Amino acid sequence: MTGETRPLNDVSLKLKPARRERLADVLYGQILEQITSGQLVEGAKLPSEARICSDFQVSRPVVREALMRLQADGLVVSRQGIGTFVKSRPSNKLTDFAASAEIASYLRAFEPRLALETECAGLAAMRRTKAQLNQIGEALHALESAFQRGENGWEEDFAFHLAVAAGAGNELFPRLLQDLRDIMSGSMRMALSLTQQGSDDRRRRVLEEHRKIFMAISSQNADLARLHMRYHLTESRARVTGSYGDL
Amino acid sequence: MTGETRPLNDVSLKLKPARRERLADVLYGQILEQITSGQLVEGAKLPSEARICSDFQVSRPVVREALMRLQADGLVVSRQGIGTFVKSRPSNKLTDFAASAEIASYLRAFEPRLALETECAGLAAMRRTKAQLNQIGEALHALESAFQRGENGWEEDFAFHLAVAAGAGNELFPRLLQDLRDIMSGSMRMALSLTQQGSDDRRRRVLEEHRKIFMAISSQNADLARLHMRYHLTESRARVTGSYGDL
Amino acid sequence: MTGETRPLNDVSLKLKPARRERLADVLYGQILEQITSGQLVEGAKLPSEARICSDFQVSRPVVREALMRLQADGLVVSRQGIGTFVKSRPSNKLTDFAASAEIASYLRAFEPRLALETECAGLAAMRRTKAQLNQIGEALHALESAFQRGENGWEEDFAFHLAVAAGAGNELFPRLLQDLRDIMSGSMRMALSLTQQGSDDRRRRVLEEHRKIFMAISSQNADLARLHMRYHLTESRARVTGSYGDL
Amino acid sequence: MTGETRPLNDVSLKLKPARRERLADVLYGQILEQITSGQLVEGAKLPSEARICSDFQVSRPVVREALMRLQADGLVVSRQGIGTFVKSRPSNKLTDFAASAEIASYLRAFEPRLALETECAGLAAMRRTKAQLNQIGEALHALESAFQRGENGWEEDFAFHLAVAAGAGNELFPRLLQDLRDIMSGSMRMALSLTQQGSDDRRRRVLEEHRKIFMAISSQNADLARLHMRYHLTESRARVTGSYGDL
Repeated sequence: MTGETRPLNDVSLKLKPARRERLADVLYGQILEQITSGQLVEGAKLPSEARICSDFQVSRPVVREALMRLQADGLVVSRQGIGTFVKSRPSNKLTDFAASAEIASYLRAFEPRLALETECAGLAAMRRTKAQLNQIGEALHALESAFQRGENGWEEDFAFHLAVAAGAGNELFPRLLQDLRDIMSGSMRMALSLTQQGSDDRRRRVLEEHRKIFMAISSQNADLARLHMRYHLTESRARVTGSYGDL
Repeated sequence: MTGETRPLNDVSLKLKPARRERLADVLYGQILEQITSGQLVEGAKLPSEARICSDFQVSRPVVREALMRLQADGLVVSRQGIGTFVKSRPSNKLTDFAASAEIASYLRAFEPRLALETECAGLAAMRRTKAQLNQIGEALHALESAFQRGENGWEEDFAFHLAVAAGAGNELFPRLLQDLRDIMSGSMRMALSLTQQGSDDRRRRVLEEHRKIFMAISSQNADLARLHMRYHLTESRARVTGSYGDL
Repeated sequence: MTGETRPLNDVSLKLKPARRERLADVLYGQILEQITSGQLVEGAKLPSEARICSDFQVSRPVVREALMRLQADGLVVSRQGIGTFVKSRPSNKLTDFAASAEIASYLRAFEPRLALETECAGLAAMRRTKAQLNQIGEALHALESAFQRGENGWEEDFAFHLAVAAGAGNELFPRLLQDLRDIMSGSMRMALSLTQQGSDDRRRRVLEEHRKIFMAISSQNADLARLHMRYHLTESRARVTGSYGDL
Repeated sequence: MTGETRPLNDVSLKLKPARRERLADVLYGQILEQITSGQLVEGAKLPSEARICSDFQVSRPVVREALMRLQADGLVVSRQGIGTFVKSRPSNKLTDFAASAEIASYLRAFEPRLALETECAGLAAMRRTKAQLNQIGEALHALESAFQRGENGWEEDFAFHLAVAAGAGNELFPRLLQDLRDIMSGSMRMALSLTQQGSDDRRRRVLEEHRKIFMAISSQNADLARLHMRYHLTESRARVTGSYGDL
């Protein structure tokens, strides 16, 4: 039997009434688990919205939000009038590092980060003082050392991104990153733990992406700094959601 | 006598030791006042960094930060190796609506807003539900009504931008705007009070910019929505700093 | 009788076999004519793809291309699974200035222009020499003079955009604009003739958009120059397709 | 002896009067040769503009243009008021594959390509037909095969980029790429010959970049397609100019 037509009805869980975001996250997590566990294989068609509503006893908007997020995260793809299909399968280690309902929330952190940090990187290229550049460079070295010690290095990663924000010459940017600290720490821990357990090549890529951001800021090239920050965050998310296999 | 060589030395104020950001804002405000009052006319050359340091009894980094922000806000322009010159003169009503040291901080709010809200507008074009679109439309009408009643309409303006953020389908965007609420309210009150006192043409432009954002989100055109949000925020800042004369 | 359900079957014309792009343009032109003439009113539903195929005796890919272009140009909107609807109605003067099948081709010119000229404006802000800036300024004044003389000013408009491309410091940019000269001249003549016949407000907007591009390049602000070029080209197209009524 | 202060005066060549762009390219090529040969090492300071003028018997605008292009290509960096310094050293094999004066012209091709092809990739993600997607996929496989056969694969590379342009649904994009075919073929031959002689890792990167563009267009994600095209072209240029060492 393939996953093609397998309904989600073996999920007996009744979702507890909570606020709408949480319900959608719980549903997201349930579907994600079926994907990571291989119950829903790549290419499998998800049940209809109506069927998911009745299986999970949730309202249509909750289902729509969960499916929209799964699509935004690159895990499923909707084909208009045909249905929704599994697109990529994250590592089954993913659920070792975060509760399935939290994963949705951690992946959502990438969207405001993309907006804010791409701009930070560009402004930092134009405005960073020499002292601020040194701090970015030190954070980069600390991240390299953490990887060498076999740690996941999330605190060093956060310090790097905060140092870039500080270089943007507008205290609102680091303030907003601090506002996101809780969710970013969960998100970074999840992503970097997967990297820690992954291949040498994967760790090399993560470091190289950070190094290119630093180099672009160092050489005061705003467009290049924006490109490398956007690329890094986009690839980080893709690595978590398994868009490129194990990388 | 032209302002060309006029030093800032008639400013007797000794800046009270405060944290660095505040000091730079106070200095920014002092220079801004001399520009709005006409003591420093368009084209006038500012004193050297060293001279400003000694006149204001502040350190070099404070002077650099204040000048960097004045340049970022389009009020002065630095020509490498030649000096820093006054570029545009904001309305002298500006200091009626905000203390001069606060103006720097209010203008800084535009930078993270540009990053966050441009992305929100694009995502809202792709994801907004019908209910969310209606809320954006209602906020637009409320803003039009406030203008008709002769109010500055900052609360309606904030509600409009918050409704766009809500349409982006990621609760972190409205959360971050709420984090900026204090500074955005000051910033919007300042900008809209100038608009309230300005020409009919100016009010018409402000409304038209909002209307185009709404239309682009309504027609689900993400690139268009991003363009109109970016244009609106850029023009709003330019109206405050007087880049286009009275408009 | 409303246009809601009106088929295109009163069109007796048999399209002559030509290359695929031309056929799609002819079909585009036919549908456009029915929109500008009011036979298809705003909100009207277009016939199905199959129906258009048989009415016009063209293949499915030709119909799809024509509809895709009408949507890209903002004239119709497709709602998945429901149908395609008329979105905005260009001025009926449009077909006075260009043959209906050429209009499709003229509007297509905006897409590569958006890509190329946005980048040119940004590079020109960073690289233009003083002589190149003067040329942009002179082209701007020539355009203003042409408008005052009651001319459509397309040659002055082309000269302005070419001067910006020259300021980008890479001879490939002006070369590519010259490659597009034929189609751009038709496109500009069409757009500016509508402006010539339009309101004073419309002419004021066209000039203001050019002026802001010049000012951004003059003040060496690359991001601002890109924004104003993108805005100008987007608005120019929207004025032709009637997205904002008469403006 | 370090290259720090080495003048360019061992260059006895008198530049023949030609049109301005060519003169600047010849000068660019001369300086480039001194960098690739190691006469000017990384960090070395170039002679002053005045000195280069007299050494090469060319006018100031020619020198400025050559230095601007060297900076745009990431080979040197100018520090205001201090001087111009060598930033990265391309492989000395570079001049095996192209005459030194042509290299400037080949690198310039990346600028309009970045503008045009980034947009093409985004439009192709939204508009490509199934047949057009297949053509992009076939071009990708042809490029992989060429690499496996040990060829530089420039024709397959050009075919790939042309197929993406065709997928954008606007015949002006492929037409403009064809207009650039001569210069793109030289540029691609130069870049891919370096790759052919380079490491396995370098070839793997080139293929992976193309594959990600294809995947983004396949999954109809316009923002992702734009990002991967921009990244690919930016990295391609950086590989030629040696910004990342041998990669």
